[in-house]
Amino acid sequence: MSTVTLIEYEDASPKVRAVYDDIRAARKSDFINNFWKALAHSPETLERVWFTLKDVMGPGTLDPLTKELVYMAVSIANKCEYCIHSHTVAARKKGMTDEQYAEFLAIVGMAHQTNGLVTSMQVPVDEAFKA
Amino acid sequence: MSTVTLIEYEDASPKVRAVYDDIRAARKSDFINNFWKALAHSPETLERVWFTLKDVMGPGTLDPLTKELVYMAVSIANKCEYCIHSHTVAARKKGMTDEQYAEFLAIVGMAHQTNGLVTSMQVPVDEAFKA
Amino acid sequence: MSTVTLIEYEDASPKVRAVYDDIRAARKSDFINNFWKALAHSPETLERVWFTLKDVMGPGTLDPLTKELVYMAVSIANKCEYCIHSHTVAARKKGMTDEQYAEFLAIVGMAHQTNGLVTSMQVPVDEAFKA
Amino acid sequence: MSTVTLIEYEDASPKVRAVYDDIRAARKSDFINNFWKALAHSPETLERVWFTLKDVMGPGTLDPLTKELVYMAVSIANKCEYCIHSHTVAARKKGMTDEQYAEFLAIVGMAHQTNGLVTSMQVPVDEAFKA
Amino acid sequence: MSTVTLIEYEDASPKVRAVYDDIRAARKSDFINNFWKALAHSPETLERVWFTLKDVMGPGTLDPLTKELVYMAVSIANKCEYCIHSHTVAARKKGMTDEQYAEFLAIVGMAHQTNGLVTSMQVPVDEAFKA
Amino acid sequence: MSTVTLIEYEDASPKVRAVYDDIRAARKSDFINNFWKALAHSPETLERVWFTLKDVMGPGTLDPLTKELVYMAVSIANKCEYCIHSHTVAARKKGMTDEQYAEFLAIVGMAHQTNGLVTSMQVPVDEAFKA
Repeated sequence: MSTVTLIEYEDASPKVRAVYDDIRAARKSDFINNFWKALAHSPETLERVWFTLKDVMGPGTLDPLTKELVYMAVSIANKCEYCIHSHTVAARKKGMTDEQYAEFLAIVGMAHQTNGLVTSMQVPVDEAFKA
Repeated sequence: MSTVTLIEYEDASPKVRAVYDDIRAARKSDFINNFWKALAHSPETLERVWFTLKDVMGPGTLDPLTKELVYMAVSIANKCEYCIHSHTVAARKKGMTDEQYAEFLAIVGMAHQTNGLVTSMQVPVDEAFKA
Repeated sequence: MSTVTLIEYEDASPKVRAVYDDIRAARKSDFINNFWKALAHSPETLERVWFTLKDVMGPGTLDPLTKELVYMAVSIANKCEYCIHSHTVAARKKGMTDEQYAEFLAIVGMAHQTNGLVTSMQVPVDEAFKA
Repeated sequence: MSTVTLIEYEDASPKVRAVYDDIRAARKSDFINNFWKALAHSPETLERVWFTLKDVMGPGTLDPLTKELVYMAVSIANKCEYCIHSHTVAARKKGMTDEQYAEFLAIVGMAHQTNGLVTSMQVPVDEAFKA
Repeated sequence: MSTVTLIEYEDASPKVRAVYDDIRAARKSDFINNFWKALAHSPETLERVWFTLKDVMGPGTLDPLTKELVYMAVSIANKCEYCIHSHTVAARKKGMTDEQYAEFLAIVGMAHQTNGLVTSMQVPVDEAFKA
Repeated sequence: MSTVTLIEYEDASPKVRAVYDDIRAARKSDFINNFWKALAHSPETLERVWFTLKDVMGPGTLDPLTKELVYMAVSIANKCEYCIHSHTVAARKKGMTDEQYAEFLAIVGMAHQTNGLVTSMQVPVDEAFKA
């Protein structure tokens, strides 16, 4: 249950529809996921977030799968259930294999562990890392 | 300042020295960073974490830089200052360019933003993501 | 599902009933929400938290809606689903409009983003902020 | 110590200078704080974040101090040292009194406590909150 | 819903079955909880995590209930719903009384509160704590 | 650097001095640590937090060291540098041995790891845990 209703295309204002249309065109699919339908109550934020995200996750010097893995890693450490599901699905669509996912999980698990150990002992940053 | 002293090679037990030797051999450098020197108070955990980490971050189906970016992403979202510094340095050593770092930062920033927005509105996971 | 049962008024001890009575009187409603019914297993904590909360959220130099928005902001960043729902409902009761909520969400989203960017780069605090 | 150097106005590219100029004009001060100087390595993100932030924190239906308090609350729960300092300073500039700050701290403390208690017991959201 | 299917004993590979067998033997029960069934997609991580956990949570200088309370405390602060449930159940099996649980909750609540207050004011570590 | 000045005994109001006196009496030491000196700007919160903490951390059904370990565990997962230092010092004063600390760290590390893995895969809570 969300704190706001989900706005469907039929009930959306022209400004929101324009964003929905762009999402559909970019993804070559009619499907609009719930995040955008909830964010549609804030048309300006919807517009800003969508276009920034399309740009940031678009072609660049990091490959598409790497970008999704970074997004997944942040979402996991931030405990965002919705984001974990949507970006894990996206990573699979971008070619993530079961073996890659298992490796990713092993890294995420170990990163959490060493983060916890370092924080426990308040280890000072090495001078060599500050160069 | 850490909650424990940092154990130097000269003062280490044989079990700890064996791990330090393996770290040096794996990295082809005499440098041992502070994390291991602090963890050396727990020789079994030191041994377990080092050998697991060497394995998890070693050759696999994800390339070395991607692995570091995932580690950085988790460490950032977990607010681990030491880990952010050490893995950013490691990523640079593995070839991360300034442009890739800027792209990485843009993704990390947007992931935090959408994580925050989704959590604020408690958006329900789409049925399509559960298939 | 909670880790404890929810204690209804009928089944409560006199000490717990006294708190429930005060909650009802303060809110001018018979409704007791689940948080208190779960906390009732710890009567002393129940009593302490309720009376402190009534005091802290009561009349002061910050207006009631601002107080709720601060509570919501903390609850979101702490990923407390229950707290997000209960305080968003409370904010609406205290007059939060759809436009204010949209502005609030935009701020929360940007705060998460800049928090993430600052942490990623470990930006040092300006001397000017320490004055 | 940050993971990147801080880019001063003199060393900045025209695109970055344009943002710095706008920051100075908006704040009626020559002072550019470290966040922007670090973010300047990512000119597009710098530009996007600054202009969005100026817009989001600008005039609206929530008053300027309330906006800063929300920003502070998120930054505290996200443990962003830099952000806590910069936004506490900003809140004081926007008129936050010592008494208001004490009230704010009391709310933030209690929100953390009830967030922790609710999470501990995994209290289910009341049906009444879902209406 | 998890991002992976849950692997039952009947469908498990020999390597996974060996771990399941060890879990059953250690717990003197046929029950395998979902965490292991999900992790079974990563047999090496499954094996490593299980055997480490058995060792870490096994006999030592801290008593079994104290170990569970530490595990619960971390899981709560990390907002891991599954982990909170499984370790609260485990603590009860290891003898946690209702009174101890109430005391534990009171500590967890206060720790969250003082953590939040300290972070809000960025209190510097006393020199006396660094000795 | 804190966001407020630290209030010394000599400069404190009668209300704050009364709390400082109680802290000194309870600890049989003249030392007042920085947390209270910062919180003294909010006399009511100072009074409430100190007396609750004295009560919660005082004699009960959990032994004093276990209580400190729970406090440390929450403070670590919440990344509160000050709290980690002060409670680790307190645990040592209450008898924590090096061996117990090493065991504690191993648990904290593994709890972070399994929290991260469970969250990554969004493992559903077993029905058996809900009984």
